[in-house]
Amino acid sequence: MPDISSPTLLLDEQKVYKNIERMVKKAEANNLTFKPHFKTHQSVQISRWFKKNNVDKITVSSIKMAEYFADDGWQDITIAFPCNVLEINRINKLAKKISLSLLASDPKTIAQINASLQNTVQIYIEIDTGSHRTGLRPDQTEVIERLLDQIQDSESLNFRGFYSHPGHSYSAQSKEEIRTIHRHAVSQMQRLKAHFEDQYPELLCCLGDTPCCSVGKKWEGIDEMSPGNFVFYDLMQAEAIGSCKADDIAVALACPVVGTYPERNEIAVHGGAIHLSKESLKINAQPVFGRIVRLNDDLTWNRIVDNTYVKSISQEHGIITCSAPFFEHIEIGDIIGVLPVHSCLTADTMKGYHCCRTADIIDHLQAAH
Amino acid sequence: MPDISSPTLLLDEQKVYKNIERMVKKAEANNLTFKPHFKTHQSVQISRWFKKNNVDKITVSSIKMAEYFADDGWQDITIAFPCNVLEINRINKLAKKISLSLLASDPKTIAQINASLQNTVQIYIEIDTGSHRTGLRPDQTEVIERLLDQIQDSESLNFRGFYSHPGHSYSAQSKEEIRTIHRHAVSQMQRLKAHFEDQYPELLCCLGDTPCCSVGKKWEGIDEMSPGNFVFYDLMQAEAIGSCKADDIAVALACPVVGTYPERNEIAVHGGAIHLSKESLKINAQPVFGRIVRLNDDLTWNRIVDNTYVKSISQEHGIITCSAPFFEHIEIGDIIGVLPVHSCLTADTMKGYHCCRTADIIDHLQAAH
Repeated sequence: MPDISSPTLLLDEQKVYKNIERMVKKAEANNLTFKPHFKTHQSVQISRWFKKNNVDKITVSSIKMAEYFADDGWQDITIAFPCNVLEINRINKLAKKISLSLLASDPKTIAQINASLQNTVQIYIEIDTGSHRTGLRPDQTEVIERLLDQIQDSESLNFRGFYSHPGHSYSAQSKEEIRTIHRHAVSQMQRLKAHFEDQYPELLCCLGDTPCCSVGKKWEGIDEMSPGNFVFYDLMQAEAIGSCKADDIAVALACPVVGTYPERNEIAVHGGAIHLSKESLKINAQPVFGRIVRLNDDLTWNRIVDNTYVKSISQEHGIITCSAPFFEHIEIGDIIGVLPVHSCLTADTMKGYHCCRTADIIDHLQAAH
Repeated sequence: MPDISSPTLLLDEQKVYKNIERMVKKAEANNLTFKPHFKTHQSVQISRWFKKNNVDKITVSSIKMAEYFADDGWQDITIAFPCNVLEINRINKLAKKISLSLLASDPKTIAQINASLQNTVQIYIEIDTGSHRTGLRPDQTEVIERLLDQIQDSESLNFRGFYSHPGHSYSAQSKEEIRTIHRHAVSQMQRLKAHFEDQYPELLCCLGDTPCCSVGKKWEGIDEMSPGNFVFYDLMQAEAIGSCKADDIAVALACPVVGTYPERNEIAVHGGAIHLSKESLKINAQPVFGRIVRLNDDLTWNRIVDNTYVKSISQEHGIITCSAPFFEHIEIGDIIGVLPVHSCLTADTMKGYHCCRTADIIDHLQAAH
């Protein structure tokens, strides 16, 4: 086994390639421009695997992430987060270099950035198709018209279309529930498009969330998709939402075993909240902070071990409830794999990846800055 | 207001100084050696504020953290995490430079490190006084004796004493509950000491968790205390456990307001799980991911705003439920403060601090490596 002695985020490139290819094909089959969200991997090396699949437009969630990928040559970047007017200097600098798209849903934001912009940016109006996080409701057509008038009047702003993240798909518990949410989001976007396309025949509708992009079937009227998490998937997607199979999960945290407790069939590993994040699932009313896999010699991993899971987590410790047969074969000094509940957060805290197939170490934005 | 445009972790030095001084005095009053745990701040600059208070022994939770503080001149460091035998090379390197103490509670661990050690290390035997995370139960005297025999027989291992983190104090909901847990932990350590002190008259008993160290009253038989979180405290300590006052909380996340939603009295801020962590409290059956404070011109903050809290959190977004009077005065482009639920995790994800009183930017281990 390669020389791993501390918590290390393993990445199975084959699984990532498959996840990318599957989504590329899905976008092609539905005539969608694929604008993957890079908030999950946050890695220029992984971004190049998308380039090989002819991806040239991407989505990110902060100006910092946009700068990072622009530095690596990406030329069409959408920041899918409500435009932060305080960051106008960085926006100006970036808009000079690349085609930058921003999200807005408030007349004040539009007025303020318009007043300070030195280069052209594209604007998506953000639509709340049911997640009630950010954006305008599709029935707020008066506000939308006011925003469009502001954009029309501006020399620096171009209207690109409508953007929605139907994040309420994360509370779905089956493919059917995801599809219901997806159909509803699509129909809301379709109605908006129908309302505005005479005036703006080139407007684009973009939908982006991994559950809907993974299992949604009807895409009429939608032009672009921007899922992010699918690149790695995770336990939340596989076990709670039902948007992927456990075998699609492409990252696992390698954790050294530091304690064994026969009287309670538990083991302690080095692998805690600063590695996995504090995200958990409720399974049979128990919180689960990760599932366990055995690692092969090349650090790839096998199927999930039955009846064995991370039951509690503190800053550095993970405590794992084990099935009796699994416990029997575990010793202090072993390294086991933990599949994360939420891979975006695990990647963000780990700040880098150990690639199983090549043994390459690749960076995450958080290590680069 | 200083130039802040993105999520920034504010640190009020006055509050940190007060938190340190209060704990220094508590240790002195109870004849305890103060060995603060540096896992919370993870900052060499903050570590120097402890040095000014004549602290010369510290506690950390990983070899990486030990190396970081040793590089800044700390000479007596305890890694309060079950010794990870796979890290023996780094342990050897560090033990050559400083007085290094490790935790162990397993004969296999002791045998393995003993076989590979090139320099002397001190060993604490870890005791589980009720948290059921790691360590031996105090009644496992046979295993303890076996460990002590191994340590006796070794040329590289010195027995330093017993260490316990009564982390079950984190489930306490009042000062009285904390004190009950504390009394029980102290009495278990006292009994152990009584059992072994004839043979080991110099053995030390160390207890370290912020709730017990903050409000525990009886310390007879205990020699050292190693709390960590108290340096910043947080909402969990102030509101759920009751170990500090809200005014003692020394860090707040400055978050730009990016959306306002009058129909639901909510605002959106840039400040999500990658800034605050996903830790939450349940208050009136609602999850709370942070409380809100208004910031002054120098970025210090005022008392908690009533009936206003972070109700949900995603990777970059925080959604805040506001009282009507607070909502009325908030605008897009404002910056508000969020008191974190768990300051250790917030500091770890933010990787640095903006000091309110001096405007200094100081580093966290995660930015340094």
